[in-house]
Amino acid sequence: MKERVLTGDRVTGKLHLGHYTGSLRNRVSLQEQYESFVMLADVQALTTHFDHPELIKANLREVALDYLSVGIDPAKSTLFIQSMIPEIAELIVYFSMFVTVNSLRHNPTIKSEAKQRGSTDMYYGFLGYPVSQAADITFCKATLIPVGEDQLPHIEQTRKIVRRFNDLYAPILLEPKALVGPRLEGIDGNHKMSKSLGNAILLDSSQKEVEEKLKKAKTDPSRVHKNDPGHPDICPIYGYHAAFQPDIAADIHKACSEGQLGCADCKGKIANTLHELLEPMRERRQVYKSKPGYVDEILLAGTGKAQAIAKETMREVREAIGINYFEDMITR
Amino acid sequence: MKERVLTGDRVTGKLHLGHYTGSLRNRVSLQEQYESFVMLADVQALTTHFDHPELIKANLREVALDYLSVGIDPAKSTLFIQSMIPEIAELIVYFSMFVTVNSLRHNPTIKSEAKQRGSTDMYYGFLGYPVSQAADITFCKATLIPVGEDQLPHIEQTRKIVRRFNDLYAPILLEPKALVGPRLEGIDGNHKMSKSLGNAILLDSSQKEVEEKLKKAKTDPSRVHKNDPGHPDICPIYGYHAAFQPDIAADIHKACSEGQLGCADCKGKIANTLHELLEPMRERRQVYKSKPGYVDEILLAGTGKAQAIAKETMREVREAIGINYFEDMITR
Ligand code: SF4
Ligand code: SF4
Repeated sequence: MKERVLTGDRVTGKLHLGHYTGSLRNRVSLQEQYESFVMLADVQALTTHFDHPELIKANLREVALDYLSVGIDPAKSTLFIQSMIPEIAELIVYFSMFVTVNSLRHNPTIKSEAKQRGSTDMYYGFLGYPVSQAADITFCKATLIPVGEDQLPHIEQTRKIVRRFNDLYAPILLEPKALVGPRLEGIDGNHKMSKSLGNAILLDSSQKEVEEKLKKAKTDPSRVHKNDPGHPDICPIYGYHAAFQPDIAADIHKACSEGQLGCADCKGKIANTLHELLEPMRERRQVYKSKPGYVDEILLAGTGKAQAIAKETMREVREAIGINYFEDMITR
Repeated sequence: MKERVLTGDRVTGKLHLGHYTGSLRNRVSLQEQYESFVMLADVQALTTHFDHPELIKANLREVALDYLSVGIDPAKSTLFIQSMIPEIAELIVYFSMFVTVNSLRHNPTIKSEAKQRGSTDMYYGFLGYPVSQAADITFCKATLIPVGEDQLPHIEQTRKIVRRFNDLYAPILLEPKALVGPRLEGIDGNHKMSKSLGNAILLDSSQKEVEEKLKKAKTDPSRVHKNDPGHPDICPIYGYHAAFQPDIAADIHKACSEGQLGCADCKGKIANTLHELLEPMRERRQVYKSKPGYVDEILLAGTGKAQAIAKETMREVREAIGINYFEDMITR
């Protein structure tokens, strides 16, 4: 049996170039070797958007189109909707019996996100985010999880939960490994591209929008004249070169450092590269959009496949815990 | 439509006289006027017994027999198994998005139980007990909940969760009311009869076992001679008279206080009363036990009914939150 990969995104907005370098690009190549699952995380989106669920509905199909447009192939990857897999909620409940509140509070990601929100209180579901992620990963027995660096503590906690479950009941769940993808800077130079920071280039941008974004993008502020030596390492545009055309990034670095490349030209070069990257995505997006109901059919088929796997995992989980009261009845 | 009553017990052990006065007796009378649901709470049992799930399996059918033996009528009451209703877990997840950790920590029942366990840490699922109870109550839209006094804060928290959900999404859930049943003392004089304290008289005891328990039962320790005036208010035996034959309890109180009733005679009287109460239960238990598979059929039929209701509630919940993405597809 092929190893399984699980990835996913909270469906609170369209995806951008940061998602592409951090995870989507990996998914496209991983689907060739692995059995690949891609989760539209609408329930996890509610942890921050419970009071704006309309954004989730509005973005669900857009995110699916983002997936399809980057080359996630529904024949190779199973796209499914989290809220339609009740077994994930059941696993959360079973795991929550033996995961302590303190182990969740001390999870570095939970700690830092709680700090960012600047509140001493937090929601119960938010505190349980690592438990929820463990349920996502284990219901489909995924063992390889492409994530951003900030998600590493969650994967570590999933591994602990799996070990504890297997010790308590029966060794039926699998410990996942993380596969860390690189982070992309925002156009404002912020270390992370993020839609909520307004510094993102969306995957479904037109070339004109891309160029406008690049025009506004921060560069090395010490360059007054075109021939001033630049500092590419503090410039997000250089980061984009490194991410999207690594083979010529060293040349760009040298030319900028030696004052032989102006920022306008440099931005022009990356604009061309992004055009080459995004244009096929735009075309694929159009193909999927042009057939009415096509995306819905893909989501329903993928969700159906995930549901079947979830049912089988829960059957094993009930048997392991010993709450499969009627199994003998049903088979007789 | 009839109002719905929900009751239930954690299936960690057989039920006893304290369950009978506190809740079971009420259930038998309530099933005449209300649509009655009785939950075998195997998932809630895991909050304390996650490392001994075998006790849950061992006790599930015994608790069902306790229900049937006291007169809960499967034609009038729906007996169902909590773990077979995944929608309860789903509701827990949706509620957990907007319930704060502090509101759970400050729940008086959680606070006092956490204190009893004498640990500064607690399990995530244990902290979420009130959320879980809210899910139990709301999935079947129960509005009347017979509980012990110690459970009142949970009902109050359910009411808050219902109001918040209805405010956030759509007014589809119902606020429940509590119906408090009296508490019964243990045979050791402890204020609460409890199997784990070893001071309980089980409903399926033989008359001989009842009499042995009563013989060991604490009475007023100041009575040295049979004719010493007694203090019935500090005597659990008097509590049993008050609970099971309230019409003659005043006479017992007087006779004991005036030194005209010896403890052995007094215990003999309550033994007879308990015989009258328990003998028909024993007979009913035998009837249900004698037909192989009968209890299982009752549990499966009741669980099936509860599942249908749960499905409909979740359909409404998804619609209210706005995550019913394919509803229009399915109906077209
Ligand atoms: S030349 Fe390119 S890498 Fe150098 S500062 Fe300008 S935009 Fe950045
Ligand atoms: S006579 Fe009855 S009520 Fe009074 S102390 Fe004895 S057992 Fe208790």
